[in-house]
Amino acid sequence: MKLGKYIQLYIPKINAAIEKIYSDKINREEHPFLKHYYTELKDYFLSGGKRIRPLLCIAAYNAFIKKKEEGDRIIIPSVGIEFLHNASLIHDDIIDKDDFRRGQPAFHYRYKMYHENYKIKKMDKIDFGNCIGIIGGDSAFFLGLEAFLNNDFEKELNLEAINYYENAFIDVSNGVLIEMDMVNRECNSIEEYITMISLKTGALLKYSTLIGATYAKAGKKQKDGISKFALNLGIIFQIIDDILGTFGDVKLTGKPTDGDIREGKKTCLLISALEKLEGPKKEKLIALIGKTGITADEIEEVKVLFKEANVIDACKTKAEHYHEIALNYLTSLEADMNPSEIEFFKDLLDFVKNRAF
Amino acid sequence: MKLGKYIQLYIPKINAAIEKIYSDKINREEHPFLKHYYTELKDYFLSGGKRIRPLLCIAAYNAFIKKKEEGDRIIIPSVGIEFLHNASLIHDDIIDKDDFRRGQPAFHYRYKMYHENYKIKKMDKIDFGNCIGIIGGDSAFFLGLEAFLNNDFEKELNLEAINYYENAFIDVSNGVLIEMDMVNRECNSIEEYITMISLKTGALLKYSTLIGATYAKAGKKQKDGISKFALNLGIIFQIIDDILGTFGDVKLTGKPTDGDIREGKKTCLLISALEKLEGPKKEKLIALIGKTGITADEIEEVKVLFKEANVIDACKTKAEHYHEIALNYLTSLEADMNPSEIEFFKDLLDFVKNRAF
Repeated sequence: MKLGKYIQLYIPKINAAIEKIYSDKINREEHPFLKHYYTELKDYFLSGGKRIRPLLCIAAYNAFIKKKEEGDRIIIPSVGIEFLHNASLIHDDIIDKDDFRRGQPAFHYRYKMYHENYKIKKMDKIDFGNCIGIIGGDSAFFLGLEAFLNNDFEKELNLEAINYYENAFIDVSNGVLIEMDMVNRECNSIEEYITMISLKTGALLKYSTLIGATYAKAGKKQKDGISKFALNLGIIFQIIDDILGTFGDVKLTGKPTDGDIREGKKTCLLISALEKLEGPKKEKLIALIGKTGITADEIEEVKVLFKEANVIDACKTKAEHYHEIALNYLTSLEADMNPSEIEFFKDLLDFVKNRAF
Repeated sequence: MKLGKYIQLYIPKINAAIEKIYSDKINREEHPFLKHYYTELKDYFLSGGKRIRPLLCIAAYNAFIKKKEEGDRIIIPSVGIEFLHNASLIHDDIIDKDDFRRGQPAFHYRYKMYHENYKIKKMDKIDFGNCIGIIGGDSAFFLGLEAFLNNDFEKELNLEAINYYENAFIDVSNGVLIEMDMVNRECNSIEEYITMISLKTGALLKYSTLIGATYAKAGKKQKDGISKFALNLGIIFQIIDDILGTFGDVKLTGKPTDGDIREGKKTCLLISALEKLEGPKKEKLIALIGKTGITADEIEEVKVLFKEANVIDACKTKAEHYHEIALNYLTSLEADMNPSEIEFFKDLLDFVKNRAF
């Protein structure tokens, strides 16, 4: 099945499953502040997102399930990793002090604004927003467990999925921690960069397919193959994300193109430039990236150095390399998979490599 | 068994179980920053704490288990809620901007200091500490799941325990959210206060016993009784905590006695004072509590008003009321429980009511 058709078929169902977990929660709460809080979380979750992770979980399930079944049992568990992903975004926005996400107010920002409603303003509004934001992310991490606790699958499979859920978070957080460490020290190792993005971005895609394949009772070879496909898909996703983060079209990505350079992120662009440049130009780039309070002009200087080092092509070549690996994993599984999902996975792989948003 | 003997027997085993979860993690990681991070988390977890939650879980298990068993299978799952508790403390310390906890550096503060080691200081040190702190709490929430995933019990029981683990967090966070809402508005309802502390403090004690009783395969009546005992124990714990937070001995509690008043917390002391005082004195108290940037002299004024309203006695009377309820639940279970644990629970109840730290 084509990616577009998969999206059309499943995204409404995925959103309905997310909506249901929250609506049950909202109905159970009596305190007005809690009702407001869970409604706001629901609204944040439903305000956008590509839903790649649930789609991967559903496709991995459909790929390996032996008997076609009615009723889409997999939809509920498929949203678990999406909760984890959104919970991380809520915390990321606090960490990065971003007040907007996908053109909508970030979760902590909603409560910074809500603070206006209070007659007594005992807390500072920024603190109030951040506090509710920290708890908001925490809530979403826990509510994600409901996807594995309240569904129609065997308990054994649910317990396995929860194990993956835990590992998925540990991987993502390890990636974010390594990235934060890298920002504060000199480093230009492509190996460390690949390790970092495999954890930060690849892990959630990998575990999405592992969870789907587990519920389909797929064998070891199948789980191994599809999860390695997804991990490499994640690596490509992040490399392209790095390109779009600095050279993308704001109108399409919705993200400013100065953030990564300003924050000194060790992106694929930077690592490639450091590999290529030599002498004073390399030293200048290192000095600019390490600066606190870098100016707009200096950011432009970094971009010029990036262009001189031809980093976009270098990154695209790297993405191409992982594209080939991913495709090989897919090909090796062709005999084990339903053909409709082979088409979906190939389509998704092309979309991720060629995307402009 | 007496409380002291229970502590002596089980706390070393509880700490060993916590240590093991972290050591396994540290051994699995290769990246130096991650090794440091999990070691720091382990150190934070092992730097103190009364371990009341694991003790309650173990005692509930021992109370209802039919055949005495060797090997202490319950120790591993008993630390789950302790992870949840410590994870919340890590986030609380960021929220409250407390750099110390139990006389030791708070988790986020350790990384504020660690930041000194970097040659490039791209991030601000406070931001760096807070970021790692947010992720640190998140990690601990997830690692707590290991207590229910890697033990010697049936999968069905583990899944039930994970369900309780989720509910425990939802309750605690709901309590913290209601408290934050209460701080920013006028309120003097003792009912809302009891709801808030039942969630914020009672829930973890309640779910600790529910998890223990579940692993012991206790019946509905037993689970119901012991969890209501623990919930009321939690209410008493918080009322006494409120008294010690303002009138305690710093040398014993390790906490300054101005925090609650400064933050405008709706403690049992404040609610009792608002119930008792009238006219200008009540208005004055309301005005003082609502102030941002309250001075040390004004804090003393609040304490004088508290004393005039005789709030300590009022709070102790309230604690006495919940003590009676808790004791009734215990008595109703006497025929169902092993006598050794009846003694432990009674002892713990007295300790919590009479504690000075």
